Amino acid sequence: MPEVKLALLGFGNVGQALARLLLEKRADLRRNYSLEWKAVGLFTRAHGSAIDRHGINLESALDYMARGNPLDKLPIETAPVDALDFIDTCAADVLFENSPVSYTDGEPALTHLRRALEHGMHAITANKGPVVHGYQQLRELAASMGRKFYFESTVMDGAPIFSLWREALPAAELKSLRGVLNSTTNLILTQMESGSTFEAAVRHAQDIGIAETDPSGDIDGWDASVKVAVLVTVLMDQQIRLADVKRQGIRSISLREVQAAVQDGRRWKLVCQAERTPDGMQASVQPELIGREDPLYNVMGTSSAVTFHSDVLGALTITEEDPGPHTTAYGLLADMLNAVVQGEAPAARAD
Amino acid sequence: MPEVKLALLGFGNVGQALARLLLEKRADLRRNYSLEWKAVGLFTRAHGSAIDRHGINLESALDYMARGNPLDKLPIETAPVDALDFIDTCAADVLFENSPVSYTDGEPALTHLRRALEHGMHAITANKGPVVHGYQQLRELAASMGRKFYFESTVMDGAPIFSLWREALPAAELKSLRGVLNSTTNLILTQMESGSTFEAAVRHAQDIGIAETDPSGDIDGWDASVKVAVLVTVLMDQQIRLADVKRQGIRSISLREVQAAVQDGRRWKLVCQAERTPDGMQASVQPELIGREDPLYNVMGTSSAVTFHSDVLGALTITEEDPGPHTTAYGLLADMLNAVVQGEAPAARAD
Repeated sequence: MPEVKLALLGFGNVGQALARLLLEKRADLRRNYSLEWKAVGLFTRAHGSAIDRHGINLESALDYMARGNPLDKLPIETAPVDALDFIDTCAADVLFENSPVSYTDGEPALTHLRRALEHGMHAITANKGPVVHGYQQLRELAASMGRKFYFESTVMDGAPIFSLWREALPAAELKSLRGVLNSTTNLILTQMESGSTFEAAVRHAQDIGIAETDPSGDIDGWDASVKVAVLVTVLMDQQIRLADVKRQGIRSISLREVQAAVQDGRRWKLVCQAERTPDGMQASVQPELIGREDPLYNVMGTSSAVTFHSDVLGALTITEEDPGPHTTAYGLLADMLNAVVQGEAPAARAD
Repeated sequence: MPEVKLALLGFGNVGQALARLLLEKRADLRRNYSLEWKAVGLFTRAHGSAIDRHGINLESALDYMARGNPLDKLPIETAPVDALDFIDTCAADVLFENSPVSYTDGEPALTHLRRALEHGMHAITANKGPVVHGYQQLRELAASMGRKFYFESTVMDGAPIFSLWREALPAAELKSLRGVLNSTTNLILTQMESGSTFEAAVRHAQDIGIAETDPSGDIDGWDASVKVAVLVTVLMDQQIRLADVKRQGIRSISLREVQAAVQDGRRWKLVCQAERTPDGMQASVQPELIGREDPLYNVMGTSSAVTFHSDVLGALTITEEDPGPHTTAYGLLADMLNAVVQGEAPAARAD
């Protein structure tokens, strides 16, 4: 039975949720996928790191984090304090890269993922930055090494978007897409429909851990634009720069406008769009007033949705409700399984 | 470059749409999947049949059907008039089984698919009957022969449901599902919202080719119940008989009730449901009055949708608009590609 060696670079909310999910699914993976795993490396920037080729006890590591103890105190060898040294040393088969996102250059995740692939690891991330800034490069490197670069959790958390197109929609050509892809702005607009001011809604989103301390990445449409760029780059196989996505955030929408729309049976949504046209790719993120018959009308709170128009299916919409670190973690787990358990489909594997 | 030999048993609306799609996608399959195909057999019950190991010209076959000429007149060897003899003789690698559905025993499709698998063909169908009546048997036979039994188009046409779970949601456990899965009844209810009588709405559905001459299979909830049974059998790995699905159709809903609901901001929908409970599987098809916030509220006309609740994702909804023979044909093509192009995912294959 193969034993897959895992390294987690980043062990915050998402990394810890992944650790919990791996523990929960251990018996299932053994039974249905003939797969054993061990964690050989954990890296954090502020809470220490650990490497152990015999396997780190993830229950203990989660317990250490919960108590605020640095991971170096786990009774095993101490890991390098530099992330690249960590990758060079951990000898993993799979690197889960979960460092903070950078919209401007995708670093340091891009360099981490490249280094992991060069070592022959599968490279898996929930970080949009390296996909928008280095997709071609990382995909080619992965192919040349016979490894996978997967990133399901970059858009709509763990909901299957990239794997849907990669595995379940062969020979389909994506013509256009339209969706609500940023949870924070959608939650803010939902709260404003119930009477919250913009400022109170932002604070609420921060309180429940959805929005950053500086929420401008969400509010000004950057996060949504990066997601559009990722979808276009990967699913439409068209290189697009972040600057090519026409971008407008939700700051200009007043509480009065939100409530007037509701009175009128409509809703303001921050709508993401991309379409192949005779003049090239048109991509945008901007507020739209939409009606009750719109498939995005019922996408409320932290939910998200995307509608795909292809040459073979009319309109296919994927909607995700109740996202969180655990659903992001599931996307990472699914990527790992799709990378490691080659060839046969899960259902068939279990036969 | 491998050349896949295809046989089409049934060459009506769906079979012909598949032939057109195969022709349209020929260059794409060659380029992106290194796949060549030829049609070695076409079988119809009323319009003759044809077998040619060198490949039947599908443009000519479509032309023959359009002109009402029997397929035997294609200038090639004549095929057997018995479907099983046809399967025994055609020497295909893949059988597309598209004979009419039988809710009671899944025949004759079940026997056709079994025979094809025994000959070492992949067996692909859009027919729900053999899945609800013979899934275990056909799946085991396929596994023992190293072949695939796939049936994406049995539920929500070509929208990816089974391949989604098989390929894109590894290690996820389905807890419950809820959806609108019958196009005819949903179209009828939509028409009644605009003032049509039930009878006029049924005639409209028949006129546009959605409903059968005897529409009771749809209206009384049989088609929806079979779909629920198929989803439970395959995705929840639980054998369930059609009789175990609590079933109520839409005959009892009056025009007045439909319009009163609309006045009240609600809608009648024929809702399919299945859930694992401590007391076993609860499955039903019945009319429900649903509100604006319900994810099924905006599923209108011939559209369909299903929401999945799993142990790893909150709620994942797949919605399909504008179905037709061409989308059913796409499901068959996708099944064929997933069966024949083993191992690597399409995106990676194209690298």
